[in-house]
Amino acid sequence: MSKRPVIGVFDSGFGGLTVLRELLRHLPGADYLYLGDSAHLPYGSKSQAAVTRFTASAIRELTSRGAELIVIACNTASALALASLEATSPVPLIGVIGPGAEAAAAAPAGSTALVLATEATVASHAYAHACAAAGLNAVEKACPLFVPLVEEGWVSGAITEQIAEVYLRDVLIADAHDPESAEATPSVIVLGCTHYPLLRPLLERVAERIAGIPVPVVDSAEATARRTAQLLPYATAALGEPRIAFFATDSAAKFARLGPQFLGREIDHVEHVDLDD
Amino acid sequence: MSKRPVIGVFDSGFGGLTVLRELLRHLPGADYLYLGDSAHLPYGSKSQAAVTRFTASAIRELTSRGAELIVIACNTASALALASLEATSPVPLIGVIGPGAEAAAAAPAGSTALVLATEATVASHAYAHACAAAGLNAVEKACPLFVPLVEEGWVSGAITEQIAEVYLRDVLIADAHDPESAEATPSVIVLGCTHYPLLRPLLERVAERIAGIPVPVVDSAEATARRTAQLLPYATAALGEPRIAFFATDSAAKFARLGPQFLGREIDHVEHVDLDD
Repeated sequence: MSKRPVIGVFDSGFGGLTVLRELLRHLPGADYLYLGDSAHLPYGSKSQAAVTRFTASAIRELTSRGAELIVIACNTASALALASLEATSPVPLIGVIGPGAEAAAAAPAGSTALVLATEATVASHAYAHACAAAGLNAVEKACPLFVPLVEEGWVSGAITEQIAEVYLRDVLIADAHDPESAEATPSVIVLGCTHYPLLRPLLERVAERIAGIPVPVVDSAEATARRTAQLLPYATAALGEPRIAFFATDSAAKFARLGPQFLGREIDHVEHVDLDD
Repeated sequence: MSKRPVIGVFDSGFGGLTVLRELLRHLPGADYLYLGDSAHLPYGSKSQAAVTRFTASAIRELTSRGAELIVIACNTASALALASLEATSPVPLIGVIGPGAEAAAAAPAGSTALVLATEATVASHAYAHACAAAGLNAVEKACPLFVPLVEEGWVSGAITEQIAEVYLRDVLIADAHDPESAEATPSVIVLGCTHYPLLRPLLERVAERIAGIPVPVVDSAEATARRTAQLLPYATAALGEPRIAFFATDSAAKFARLGPQFLGREIDHVEHVDLDD
C-alpha cells in the first residue's frame, strides 16, 4: 500500500477552500497543507509581478513543509504566475484555469463561454487562451465587487442580484440586429474565481432572467480535483481520515470565521506563517 | 527663511491622497513623499499584527528617504498601529483619528457621532476613545463594501445608495419607544476611512432621507492637515510649487489610474518600492 501523498493547496485567502472541498471528495487518500496568503489578499487587483512573488514564496513554504504536489487554487495566481513558476518549482503545479476551461467544453464546440473573474485574471486573458485550446470562444468579464460581497456574506438578496445584473446584462444579451453578436451569445458561464461558487444560485437566477433561458454555470473546483486525481490515482481511495493543516499569513480569526462556508466543514486550527516576499 | 520640510504621507493605497490634497492646501511650503502600500491593500480586513508590521516598514522607508514628519493617512493604520509605533519612530507621527474626532466635536457636547469605517478600525474602537476624549458618544459602523465600491468607481447611483441605506438604516433611526435610543440618534457622521469622502454627496443624501433632517458629514482630511500645520507653521506659506514623489508597493498603473480622483490632480510618476515585512 502506498503512503499517503501530501498535497499543498495555495490561495490568496479562503476561496481556494472550495477547491480543497472537491479535492477531499475526489482524493480522500491524501493529506493536505492549505496555505492562504491572507496578508496580501485580494490578489485580483494586484500586478503580475506582485502575484508571482507571493506565489513563489508560497511554493517554497509548502514544499519546505512536505508538499509533493501543489494545487494553485486561485484563479489570479494560476493566470499570472503559473506559467513562469512551473519551470523552477521542485514539485508539480496544477492550476485551476485549464480545468475550468475544460469544464466549460461540454458546451458545443465553437460556442462561447462567459468567464466571470477578477480584474487581474481578465487582464491576463488566461481563460481566453485556455478556452481556445478547448475549442471555445470566451467573453471575459471582470466583476470586482463579487469577492467583497461574498466576504460580507451577501450571497443572495436584491442588492447582489442588481450588481450581478449590471455585470451580466451587456455580456449575456446578444444584439438581435447583429448576426455576429447573436452567434456570440454565451452558452455557458465559467466561474473564474474561487469565491464565486457561493454566488452560483444567484448567478443562475440572474442569467436565466436576462437570457430568457437557463444558462449552465460551471466552476473549476471539481475539474481541478479530477485532474489531480489523474496524477495521483492511488489517493482516490479512502484510507482513514485525511490530515489537513491550515496556514494563513494574516490572523487565524477571520480565516476560521469565513473558511467553513467555503470548505463546508469546520476549521479547528489555523497556524500563522510569514512568507518572505 | 527656513528650508522646506519633507512630510511623509503613508496609506495602504490611494485613499490617503484625500489627506495629501488637504496637506497641499494647508502646507504649500512643504515637500511630500507619498507611500501607498498597495501590495497589501486593503488594510481594513487585516489583523493588528499585520497592519503594525506593514506600517513599521513604511515608516522605515519614508524616514530613509528623508521624511521629517509622517502623516499616517490611513484610518486602519492609525487605529491599529499608531500607539505602538509612536514610541520608537525616529520622527513625529500624526494619525487621522484624533483630528477626525475633533472635526466631529463641533456637534453639541454629549451628542452622538456615527463613525463609518472599515472592519478593523471599528473593531479597534479607536474612534470611540477619540470621540470620548472630544466629549462625544460614538456609534461605530463597519461598511466593508464602501472601499471596493469607490475603487469600482460606483460613487453614485441606485445600487450604492441601497448599500448605504442598509449600512445606515439601523444606526440612524432611533427607536421612538426607547428614550435612551432616541437620545443616541447621531447628530454628525464621521467618515472614518480616507476612501469615503468620494461617497460624501451620496451619504448626505441617504442620511437625510433616513433621518428626515440633514445630518452633517465630516472627514478627517482637513482636520489632519490643520493639526500638521500647527506643528510646522513655517510651511503654511506658499514658497513655489511643492515637490511630491509617489511610491507604491504594487505596480504604478492602478495607482496612476485611481489616484487622481482622490488627489484632485494628475499623478505623473509612481516609483515601485518593496517593503521588507
